[in-house]
Order: sequence, then C-alpha cells, then structure tokens
Amino acid sequence: MVKVNENFVKLPASYLFVEIDNRVKAFQKKHPEKEILRLGIGDVTRPLVGPVVDAMKRATDEMGCAETFRGYGPENGYAFLRETIAENDYKDLSIEPDEIFISDGAKSDTGSIGDIFGLENVVAVCDPVYPVYVDTNVMAGRAGEFVEGKGWSKIIYMPCLEENCFLPSFPEQVPDLIYLCFPNNPSGVSMPKSQLQAWVNYANQHGSIILFDAAYEAFIVTPGVPHSIFECSGAENCAIEFRSFSKTAGFTGLRCAFTVIPKALKIGDVSLNQLWGRRQSTKMNGVSYPVQRAAEAVYTKDGQKLIRENINYYHHNARIILQGLKAAGFTVYGGVDSPYVWMKVPAGMTSWQFFDELLEKCAVVGTPGSGFGIHGEGYFRLTSFNTTENTEKAVQRIVEQFQ
Amino acid sequence: MVKVNENFVKLPASYLFVEIDNRVKAFQKKHPEKEILRLGIGDVTRPLVGPVVDAMKRATDEMGCAETFRGYGPENGYAFLRETIAENDYKDLSIEPDEIFISDGAKSDTGSIGDIFGLENVVAVCDPVYPVYVDTNVMAGRAGEFVEGKGWSKIIYMPCLEENCFLPSFPEQVPDLIYLCFPNNPSGVSMPKSQLQAWVNYANQHGSIILFDAAYEAFIVTPGVPHSIFECSGAENCAIEFRSFSKTAGFTGLRCAFTVIPKALKIGDVSLNQLWGRRQSTKMNGVSYPVQRAAEAVYTKDGQKLIRENINYYHHNARIILQGLKAAGFTVYGGVDSPYVWMKVPAGMTSWQFFDELLEKCAVVGTPGSGFGIHGEGYFRLTSFNTTENTEKAVQRIVEQFQ
Repeated sequence: MVKVNENFVKLPASYLFVEIDNRVKAFQKKHPEKEILRLGIGDVTRPLVGPVVDAMKRATDEMGCAETFRGYGPENGYAFLRETIAENDYKDLSIEPDEIFISDGAKSDTGSIGDIFGLENVVAVCDPVYPVYVDTNVMAGRAGEFVEGKGWSKIIYMPCLEENCFLPSFPEQVPDLIYLCFPNNPSGVSMPKSQLQAWVNYANQHGSIILFDAAYEAFIVTPGVPHSIFECSGAENCAIEFRSFSKTAGFTGLRCAFTVIPKALKIGDVSLNQLWGRRQSTKMNGVSYPVQRAAEAVYTKDGQKLIRENINYYHHNARIILQGLKAAGFTVYGGVDSPYVWMKVPAGMTSWQFFDELLEKCAVVGTPGSGFGIHGEGYFRLTSFNTTENTEKAVQRIVEQFQ
Repeated sequence: MVKVNENFVKLPASYLFVEIDNRVKAFQKKHPEKEILRLGIGDVTRPLVGPVVDAMKRATDEMGCAETFRGYGPENGYAFLRETIAENDYKDLSIEPDEIFISDGAKSDTGSIGDIFGLENVVAVCDPVYPVYVDTNVMAGRAGEFVEGKGWSKIIYMPCLEENCFLPSFPEQVPDLIYLCFPNNPSGVSMPKSQLQAWVNYANQHGSIILFDAAYEAFIVTPGVPHSIFECSGAENCAIEFRSFSKTAGFTGLRCAFTVIPKALKIGDVSLNQLWGRRQSTKMNGVSYPVQRAAEAVYTKDGQKLIRENINYYHHNARIILQGLKAAGFTVYGGVDSPYVWMKVPAGMTSWQFFDELLEKCAVVGTPGSGFGIHGEGYFRLTSFNTTENTEKAVQRIVEQFQ
C-alpha cells in the first residue's frame, strides 16, 4: 500500500496571497466604484526589452528550420550563455563557465538545492523570509514539527528586526545550511560587504554552507554593497549563489536563472558542483533554447542599457514610495538597493489590521509582513513594480490619509 | 558540519553515452575518412512546424509590449493550454483541465514525482528501463544498495524479455510505486489494452500507484493500443500519466510536457492532485509563456497535420530499419508504435561487442541494450530519428555486412 510523503501533509496551506485576494475581492464588491491600486505585487510589469525579444524570435526561427534546429541542449545550459555570464557578471571573480548552471528559475534552484544535502542538516533562515526556503525543507523532512506562534521545531530562525538593521546575527546553535537573501525579500535591505564577509568566515569556520539568493542583485546602487557573495574572500569554499533574469530583465514569464557552485566547494572529497550537475542532468533537460538566447541578449550593449532603464524606472517608483511614506510620518526601510519598501505599521496595529485599513481608506493593496514570518509582524511590504502613475496615485492617497 | 546526501554518492557515474561517445571518437580518429551514421540518438531532428514557430514568435512579441506583457504565470500552466489538452487528448476520458499540470519536461516530472511519496515505498521498474526512474529513486534513498550484476537491493526489477513479449509480469513482491512506459523506451513495444487494464486492476487491488510514462503516445498506430492509461477502467484511482511535446511535436529543445493526476486519486484522505500542485507551486514558477503558446499551436488543425507528417517521417524510417534488419537475418522488435527498434545481437555476442562490430564494420552507431539494465544484455537499440537518407544508408551497410 503506497504511502504519501507525510512531510507534505504537515505543511499548512499557503494562505497569504489567497487571503489578500479574498479581502481585495470583497472590498471591490462592496465598493465597485473605487480604483484599487496594487503595490503588493512582487512581479515585474515592464515589458521585455527589444534585443531580448529579437534574440528570442531569431532563435525560434532557427528551431523552425532543419539546418539550424536544436533538440536536447546541455542540461546545465549552453556554453554561449554560461560563458557570457562568467565574462560579464563574474569578470573579476574567477568564476568559470562550468561553475554556472542555467535553470528555469531561482525558485526552482533554491527549492531543489536541498536534494544534494543530507536530511540531518540543520537549516537557518532569516525571519521574515521568502517562504520557499522553509516550505521546501518542510517537504524534505528537515523542519521538524510546526509549533503555533513559534514556527518549525528544527529550523533556526534568525530574527531580522529594526534593532539589527534587518541583518541576521549568528545564531546560538550552529546551522549546517544558511539561507541568506540580499538585497532582501521582503525587507528590501542590502548587506554591507563586511557583514557578508563575516558570514563567509563563520561558515568556513563551522563547516556550514551559505545558500546565497542574489535575485535582486541588479537593484544594488549603494557603493560597496556586494553584488556577489564571491566578492568575499573564502566564499568559494562555503557558498552557492542563486541569480535570476526575472527581476533583472523582466523574465518572470520567460523563466531563466542560474546557480553558481564553485569547483572548490567540497564536503570532504565530494564536489557539490558535480553533485548538482548530476542532480540537474538526472531531473531536468535544460532550459528552452530560445529563452537561453534571450538571456544572452540581456548582456549586449543595447540590452544592458535598456534593462538598466527599466530598473531605474522601478527605483524611481521606490523613491516615490519612500518619500511619500516618510512625509506621512511612517518609518521606512529598504527601497534603495531593492524594489521592496519595508514599513512599520502604526503602533498598536498588526500587519493585517493595517492591510485592512489601507484597503478601506486608500484602496491600496500591500503585503502584511506577518505573512513572511513571525518577526515580520508589525511590518508591511510595498513594491515599486507598478507603473509610476499608479505608484504616485497610491502614495498620494496614503499621504492624504495618514499625514 | 554540513553533510551531503549520501544517496547521491552511491550513484555510479552514468557512463553509457559518455562511453559511446569515447568509442565513436576513437573510431573516427582512426578512420577519419569514414562517414559515421548515428542511429543511437534518442532526440528528434525534424524542425518545429510553422504554426508552432509562429505562435511562439507572436507570444514573444506580446512580451515585448507593456499592454500584453505577462509576468509570473500560473505555476501549473495557463488555462488556455490545460483546456486545449483536456479537449483534445482526453476528449472522451473526462479529464478536467485542473487535473493537468504543465511542466518543462516528462523527465522533470517522472524525476520529481517521488517528492510526494514516502521514502518507505517499494519501487518496481521494467528491466531494461529508462534510467531516470531508477536514478531519481536512488537519489531519494528508496533504492537500497547497489549489488554488482544484480542492481539495487530494494528495487523490484520486472524483466522484459522475448518470452514475455517485453511486457512485464506481476512481480512476486507487491510494489507500491510501479513505473510503466508504453510504448516503451528502449524496447519500442506497446502494451495492449487488456494488459494495461490488468495492471490497473492489480494496482487498485494492492493499493499501488502506476506512474505511466506515455511520452511516445503520438507514435501509436496499432488499433486498440491505449494512448492513455485513463482509457482503462479504474485508472483514475491508481494512475498518474506523463506526456510530453518532445517527441510528439519536436519540443526537445523548447521544453514542454504535462502530467495528469485525477482528482479521484487519493491515498486515504490525501489528494495526490493537491500534493503535486503544492509541490509544483513551491518548487517552480511555471513554463515559459511563449513555449505554452507554442504547445497550444500543436493542437491547431495545421499543427496537427504537420506534426503528423513528421511522425510519419520517423515511422517510415523505422520501417526501413525493421525491413533491412529482417532481411539481414536479425530478430527485431518494436518500431511500429514507436521510434525505437529493439534488435537481438548475434548469438554469443554481448551488446557492447555488437556495438563495436557495428561501428568497425559499418560505421553505424546504436545503443547497447545492456546500458538500460541487466535484461537489456544481448539487445541493441536503433532509432528512427535520423534523416531518411542516413537511415537508408546505415541499413544498407548493415544488410551488406550481415546478410
């Protein structure tokens, strides 16, 4: 008699965005005349840039012609893309093309990286946190039991609060696998080089691995903030880095990302680069060829210029949010090296109470911080991914209401 | 101190195609003047059909325009594609769109489906077999230990031999998870309805789940051979079906497939449809939107006509191989409902010895059956995926050599 993976059954249903959706729908029904503005969205809205569209269409034409048709590609990505990434994103960091694995998304990779690690490893995450790190460890059986109001019994939560500038401190118990995401989702803060270096040193000292999610790297503008964990000395011995074209170049609907595992990264004699290569070549067949050509085009001169314009557009929106909220008297964080603004909700309110108030009074939708973890309570996430026009309108309503 | 997944370390390196490549390269070096013909390839060679290319380019243009841009899609696929599949592939089988999960490949899905099942389940596979079923269970820890000359200690191997027409018999020990692939890779044989129905009855009687890989469904021409396991009565209570656009429509380089999990399929109270939905929405972000539009175009009238022409082209090649090998005195199987021909190697020879002989004497490359499992020894796989011209040439050389 077949048995299900009981760890899946333990996982509470993911209510956050469903609940948001339900409340927004109920509000719209009650007030059909109101224009609802969504600053909760974690998805890009600017279209793909021209060189990317052109490259993808050219590659699609190739696939329609017997002479240029390509079937199965290399599971870990075409050399043309791996080389382009190495040359551009890791120019001064001595990352080789065969240390780069092309995939269909950073969510896929951060979600599946656990496959190559033993189930006995102790996992640490920031709190608040992108839920995928936790949920996939629950599914695998590394999380223990869920304790209401506390979280999973075997997971180490590293609180990221105002008092530590939303940067995690070393936990009491030493973890084996440490998930770090900077610039951070949801808080929008970036991690200074010195602190990331301290984490690398910590990991090397304790034989831990840092799983570094750099999905928002392209948003970094503050000088000195590391774009890659491999800017830190010794990271090649303790870190795996995840990057994505999703937020960088608007690929959320195209699907392309990559993971960097240095060949120097070993546990005993075992190369994690080889292990991941084996995992990927056994469990997937590579990324769509035209999508890989599209990703390559991101690195052309025109591609870089145009994606930078889009990122500047989102940065501009983030500044509008930051300035408006400050003017309205709110305490705000993030929003500089990131598309996310992390605000404190008014004293005495929960994240969900503020959600309701913002919806009722301003018809503006954000994301309650408590949806990202216990220590997200009392905070609220707004994003810069809507249009400038809508962002301005939303902020104006907030200012008028709360000023 | 972090620990690797020791199951990965147990997995022997996959030598089959590397070894083939090495021997072919050595031969070419020794005989630079010889034209090597490859009938070992398991990948399509006909280009994408026009309506597919056009749909993909149109969707790519949509992504380049703010008004029609699409970001994250539904993790389990767009409704337009799920509905089209339900209407076309499952017209009379009452499969609903929300029982269909779009993915980037049948390899991904057959490789990851184990995530939703407990590690204590006993797995049965055909022998010979597509290696992904075994390797992914090794990685998960369901395979036990590797015993030289026998295989994995906890895996039930179901021999598929001449005497049982390459169709597995019920094993002595009752398995929990039963991988079946028909039309089969590597043997190329299809399973008659009565026998598939017997497997469905067996699974329902014992509380087992059949993981039915129907990747070669489009090649079925024999009347009465089931195209879907859901043609069998009761399959909705015991079966998951995997399908792919790879071999059907030349999508090996585009990446699109789907998995069907009926809502009726439950273990106790637990719906496997819900569990897989949760797995997919946690570990991936859906398939590239333009690729989903390309897959939708496969079902247009023109799309169907043109992909049928390509499949007929491969069928024609398979007939050339079958007829030629028979004329040369070989015993051959498969090649009717499948792109694969499964031949017996001359008495007294191993699969690898025949590989070398075929390479040396005919400069033709195939795949040694022993690469697919112990019971593949003594057999050899040829595929119909090369051009008709090359197929004819290769067969002529074999006939001249062995007749």
